[in-house]
Amino acid sequence: MKKILLLSVMLLVGVMTYAQQALWGGAPVVSPEIHDDNTVTFRLKAPKAVKVQVTGDFLPTQKITTPFGEFDGPGVADLKEGKDGVWEYTTPEPLAPELYSYSFIVDDLKMMDPANVYMIRDVATVTNVFLIGGGRADLYKVNDVPHGTVSRIWYNSPTLKKERRLTVYTPAGYETSGKRYPVFYLLHGMGGDEEAWIALGRTSQILDNLIAQGKAEPMIVVMTNGNASQEAAPGESQDGFKAPSMNLPQTMEGSFETAFPDVVKFIDKTYRTKTNKRNRAIAGLSMGGYHSLHISKQYPDMFNYVGLFSAAIMPDKKVQSPIYDDFDQKLKTQFAKKPALYWIGIGKTDFLYQANTEYRKLLDERGYKYTYYESEGGHIWRNWRIYLTEFAPLLFK
Amino acid sequence: MKKILLLSVMLLVGVMTYAQQALWGGAPVVSPEIHDDNTVTFRLKAPKAVKVQVTGDFLPTQKITTPFGEFDGPGVADLKEGKDGVWEYTTPEPLAPELYSYSFIVDDLKMMDPANVYMIRDVATVTNVFLIGGGRADLYKVNDVPHGTVSRIWYNSPTLKKERRLTVYTPAGYETSGKRYPVFYLLHGMGGDEEAWIALGRTSQILDNLIAQGKAEPMIVVMTNGNASQEAAPGESQDGFKAPSMNLPQTMEGSFETAFPDVVKFIDKTYRTKTNKRNRAIAGLSMGGYHSLHISKQYPDMFNYVGLFSAAIMPDKKVQSPIYDDFDQKLKTQFAKKPALYWIGIGKTDFLYQANTEYRKLLDERGYKYTYYESEGGHIWRNWRIYLTEFAPLLFK
Repeated sequence: MKKILLLSVMLLVGVMTYAQQALWGGAPVVSPEIHDDNTVTFRLKAPKAVKVQVTGDFLPTQKITTPFGEFDGPGVADLKEGKDGVWEYTTPEPLAPELYSYSFIVDDLKMMDPANVYMIRDVATVTNVFLIGGGRADLYKVNDVPHGTVSRIWYNSPTLKKERRLTVYTPAGYETSGKRYPVFYLLHGMGGDEEAWIALGRTSQILDNLIAQGKAEPMIVVMTNGNASQEAAPGESQDGFKAPSMNLPQTMEGSFETAFPDVVKFIDKTYRTKTNKRNRAIAGLSMGGYHSLHISKQYPDMFNYVGLFSAAIMPDKKVQSPIYDDFDQKLKTQFAKKPALYWIGIGKTDFLYQANTEYRKLLDERGYKYTYYESEGGHIWRNWRIYLTEFAPLLFK
Repeated sequence: MKKILLLSVMLLVGVMTYAQQALWGGAPVVSPEIHDDNTVTFRLKAPKAVKVQVTGDFLPTQKITTPFGEFDGPGVADLKEGKDGVWEYTTPEPLAPELYSYSFIVDDLKMMDPANVYMIRDVATVTNVFLIGGGRADLYKVNDVPHGTVSRIWYNSPTLKKERRLTVYTPAGYETSGKRYPVFYLLHGMGGDEEAWIALGRTSQILDNLIAQGKAEPMIVVMTNGNASQEAAPGESQDGFKAPSMNLPQTMEGSFETAFPDVVKFIDKTYRTKTNKRNRAIAGLSMGGYHSLHISKQYPDMFNYVGLFSAAIMPDKKVQSPIYDDFDQKLKTQFAKKPALYWIGIGKTDFLYQANTEYRKLLDERGYKYTYYESEGGHIWRNWRIYLTEFAPLLFK
């Protein structure tokens, strides 16, 4: 046994650490470093680089011109080379509490920060992330509160003839409480998938924190995949590790809305839910807001709470689906049944602002009641996290 | 309504695609491209780069010398610059079916492949991945079979005085079958966490496929966090997005083993389990094999199936814990109770090969029965996936 004892724990740690730093590039610098005053320093060791920049949503936006018009894009800042080929940039001002995304650009080549293992994929783009705590952003953190369970579960959709994946949040205590819970269906935007609200939306952290503070009711949150041609998020389906495509044939043409009752039936069969309209909410961002609008009016007895977050409103003229027929009559029926909440949130510089203004005008003209929340900024995750923290406390009260 | 109709779906897609390619660097090349003959081409657009290399476990290993001895490390290959600054490398031979990891090295700076959104974090290192199908590697794919559910769930450990996170796989049909299931506890290596077996180990795919083929019994798989000082994987705890540390004070000093009954109690309370030794298995890789060894002999009435995958065997001499006292007597008691399976798997070039040889000699001398599986290669995930596909079919028969 003596010989076996000689095998030291240090060996395991030592080899791994060595391999990591010497062979795999490693992380000889700290980046990002969040200082006590909430200024942030970014560092990259790149002795051979000629130009190193950082781009991200923590920088002032800059206008970008596209064939579709002018939009706000993330800014870019230059890092300066210091000792040992370590480049550095510190924000001139403290950053406001928020979850931020960023990437480096080294000699015009975008790359992740090798010192930061935290990355979030948004559609086909991966960026590093960091979080400045305080204020509302404390809701985005894992805090010392009871934590719900996050499950990836598959359901069969007879309408779409597919097995499909859902992300489901059940509140802390669900497994052993024996109780039934209300259900909030939370839908992503175009190109997103059933991972988007968990990764970028911080849904499980926000719900854990709001429920622990007594500000939101304990509820089940169901995050669907709104692309009816997909089984699951990229990398999680039979497509394997195929590059995500922006060719999205079944996103805003009625298929997802038509098949939505399959999801509700599955959830009511599989979880301890309160199976009535009074205990169901639906909301979504951008395309998911569009889905929420059309699903809630198609099935007027299904949802008592509706949230449109930076929503697209009307289908493309070329799109044909019974879902979009009889718009006025369906909306009339929905509002005649007096939903407990019809909530519209939009940012002042969102490219969908005008469409939302026109839709609100229509609702106003017909006397359909809704709650309106206007924020700064545009069509960005920062707003959708804010809308979630505003919307969830209003549900099931 | 006419005006609202003018808002085209194309706008949403168009802006996103444009922003992605023009602003965020985008992915103008296909990489990796897996050809029909299973050769693979890697591409990177980097017009200003002087040297571009690819490193990964698909290349022949090369010796690296460390203070701890000589080990096999991943190889490196040069890409060649072609038209428009696109660098390229194609493997000279087809690659065998496997899940592979790789990174680019651009002018000595390691970076992810911007054309590949699929990445896996292993401890503090993130690499891109791709999969060559066929043979055993088909078990690592999402196939057209019923899929189990993967949940991240928190439990309270009275022993460690912490809320801690688990990853739990429940087999397809669990939610509505009403049946009770056997439980397989599957433990990660040093520096890993409760995400390791799901991400790199492909546990949910392997179990889905083995169960669908009738080769493994439907079972619950519980993946713990073996670092008793952690609540959860990096990024998932109150530590927030702190850089993962290789300072692991509570990994191989008895705390995790002492607190293990907390996990079993929680699982038996929370899931429909078969709550007896006959229906419990434990296995782990490297440090997780060490944990499995010491937990199974500490609690000889808990586990009927034990798997040591490239296991560390004995604690460091300086470590003091009642867990490691009376080694011989505890092992005698464990084997007197005749476990249904005591399985040892190790690679021929593993740095723990000698320690495992000596441990087997000890078992042989005492007449303790075990099953031995020797593979090629060393202390790598390729082997641990293989061991899982070999071990899981032997359980609960």
